[in-house]
Amino acid sequence: MLIVKKFGGSSVADKDRIYNVARRCIEDYEKGNEVVVVLSAMGKTTDGLIAKAREINPNPPKREMDMLLATGEQTSVALMSMAMSALGVPAVSLNAAQVAMHTTSAYGMAKLKRIDTERIRHELDARKIVIITGFQGINKYDDITTLGRGGSDTTAVALAAALHADACEIYTDVDGVYTADPRIVPNARKLTEVSYDEMLEFASLGAKVLHNRSVEMAKRYGVQLVVLSSLTRAVGTIIKEETKVERMLVSGVAADKNVARISVIGVKNEPGIAFKIFNLLARHHINVDIIIQSIGREERKDISFTVARTDLQEAMTLLNENREVLTAQTIACEEGVAKISIIGAGMTSNPGVAAKMFESLYSANVNIKMIATSEIRITVLIAEEDVNRAMRTVHDAFDLAD
Amino acid sequence: MLIVKKFGGSSVADKDRIYNVARRCIEDYEKGNEVVVVLSAMGKTTDGLIAKAREINPNPPKREMDMLLATGEQTSVALMSMAMSALGVPAVSLNAAQVAMHTTSAYGMAKLKRIDTERIRHELDARKIVIITGFQGINKYDDITTLGRGGSDTTAVALAAALHADACEIYTDVDGVYTADPRIVPNARKLTEVSYDEMLEFASLGAKVLHNRSVEMAKRYGVQLVVLSSLTRAVGTIIKEETKVERMLVSGVAADKNVARISVIGVKNEPGIAFKIFNLLARHHINVDIIIQSIGREERKDISFTVARTDLQEAMTLLNENREVLTAQTIACEEGVAKISIIGAGMTSNPGVAAKMFESLYSANVNIKMIATSEIRITVLIAEEDVNRAMRTVHDAFDLAD
Repeated sequence: MLIVKKFGGSSVADKDRIYNVARRCIEDYEKGNEVVVVLSAMGKTTDGLIAKAREINPNPPKREMDMLLATGEQTSVALMSMAMSALGVPAVSLNAAQVAMHTTSAYGMAKLKRIDTERIRHELDARKIVIITGFQGINKYDDITTLGRGGSDTTAVALAAALHADACEIYTDVDGVYTADPRIVPNARKLTEVSYDEMLEFASLGAKVLHNRSVEMAKRYGVQLVVLSSLTRAVGTIIKEETKVERMLVSGVAADKNVARISVIGVKNEPGIAFKIFNLLARHHINVDIIIQSIGREERKDISFTVARTDLQEAMTLLNENREVLTAQTIACEEGVAKISIIGAGMTSNPGVAAKMFESLYSANVNIKMIATSEIRITVLIAEEDVNRAMRTVHDAFDLAD
Repeated sequence: MLIVKKFGGSSVADKDRIYNVARRCIEDYEKGNEVVVVLSAMGKTTDGLIAKAREINPNPPKREMDMLLATGEQTSVALMSMAMSALGVPAVSLNAAQVAMHTTSAYGMAKLKRIDTERIRHELDARKIVIITGFQGINKYDDITTLGRGGSDTTAVALAAALHADACEIYTDVDGVYTADPRIVPNARKLTEVSYDEMLEFASLGAKVLHNRSVEMAKRYGVQLVVLSSLTRAVGTIIKEETKVERMLVSGVAADKNVARISVIGVKNEPGIAFKIFNLLARHHINVDIIIQSIGREERKDISFTVARTDLQEAMTLLNENREVLTAQTIACEEGVAKISIIGAGMTSNPGVAAKMFESLYSANVNIKMIATSEIRITVLIAEEDVNRAMRTVHDAFDLAD
């Protein structure tokens, strides 16, 4: 079997953890498997490098930032290889140029285009464990790029696809995907498996297990993922194509507090206004979620939507600067809100799921401000102060507990 | 003009020093020159990385060590490029793979074979300052190598040769080459220029200004070097081919305390014994300096020589293990010794230089234990406790003071 194993920064933060990871990889190797390991930078290394750069130049060129950040993963892979060598197992570390991992040219947010597998195959054939830098690539100028947030997960998935791996294991701080955040819902249950689409919804709704990009790539190339903890031996969660004939109506509940509501009030009731608003925000890379358009008055209408709270200030500035073009009378915003979502591939064929969710929130006296639905999720906007209570209520209503 | 400027680790140890170096490079750039900068790792970075590696594995694989160490210079060049960018000057950092700097495969002690200049030329033509990692290269496997001690100086000289640079400036802690160590001989004088051969003797005799490898390469390719300080504006020392018709008899005095004497006593007076001794040591990379062979007794003779004090223990172990093969009766050693040398291209044609040195040492009551001479230097072994007094005496005898 060819196994790709990815470990995040906290899994290789110090000597003990490096050896812990080395031993887990060697276990697989000694069973006769081919083992490819993908590593992030150790602990807080990347944050430290960013701080160092900003001390020199508050607005460093992105190309040079990537040149700097890439040293973080290179340090991890070299030290891991040394640890495996100390344990008597032949290993070799490779950076993105050595592999080579070809990406687009967009420094700081490059996308993987193609992975050469020749060098990796050569080293695997020599019965070595191959340890590869996550998060980084090279572009057509031979310059180093980085993949942005969730980059190392994406590296692992892309490698698994390129190498036709039999398994792709993502080791994180948590030991799987839960029906809800266990810190808020103590009786939350770990899911044995979820579909790619459900995982995408979980990820975009605040579950910090896997970044969307890696899940999207896994779905596109049919790479089956397992999410596990590097510190325990607990069985993880499998992420794969939907296969079960009968399954849970709802897989889990997710909450996201990084949200704010914007209302563009009193715009002219004519075509193109909504386009202008969302195009303006999109051009500045501000994502918009739940959108509601009033149909109340004749000449004027209101358009409300949510953005990430971290984007609120920029969004408000942009909208106010363009208030006249947008024909808006006022632009208002609200910060003390949160999203709560239920996710489940089973809900498409089951009417009444939304009603059950709304009923449980009503019975808990939680007011719903906005609603958005997709094939496999229902999201409501509520007051931030209600969010933990709402999660537990909904979790109970769908019998998700252990 | 194309100028290669090399700065050591202490010259880029922190933000202020990085900016100091950036400004000095920009001065040359703004005069219309093409500027290539070679950097070492910042301050004690390399030592820190070595310690980190040894914590993981006391005997780390050399390939992985080079993979790790190379991150040091990559960090320096990225930060330097950011500083120049903050000062409004276009700059680009390149690591050894991006250049590419082709070396032999010997990890930790690779030798430069060939430098591709295409990428550097391309960036210079775009009017950028090009900042290149010293000390490192890539071998035929695309693996990262390091050049060993004095590596960054060698990188700079090799780049100057490959780019047909008009100047190669080596910035160090000191502002040039002196007639003697100014800490010991307060009235020592800075030399305006020295020949490659003299510099080689200075370097191998304990002057820490430049490593021999870089001087040898400069001599081979006719690269004229200037040694200067990154912290002052003092005129440095030029190192070039001998040109002056008339010149100083003696250029300077050097002392080396990293020395010990070994005596292999009572070996059989037959051919091949000396070969066996020095071959044994050479195979273990132990360099031998002053050699004296007694011609006293008929059947047995003594062979004495000096080694670096740091090699003494290993040398003694090796010799004792092979005592019977070497036909030796005893092997003795002495640690409290030092070498003092006078260096000067003028001495070849001037008899009496040695006599003058010996006379001055005699008048200062310094006992000479061993003597070795070359075309341009005379070295004597004396007691370590006499070394500072001996230096000042000889320095005065040859009128080297300011």
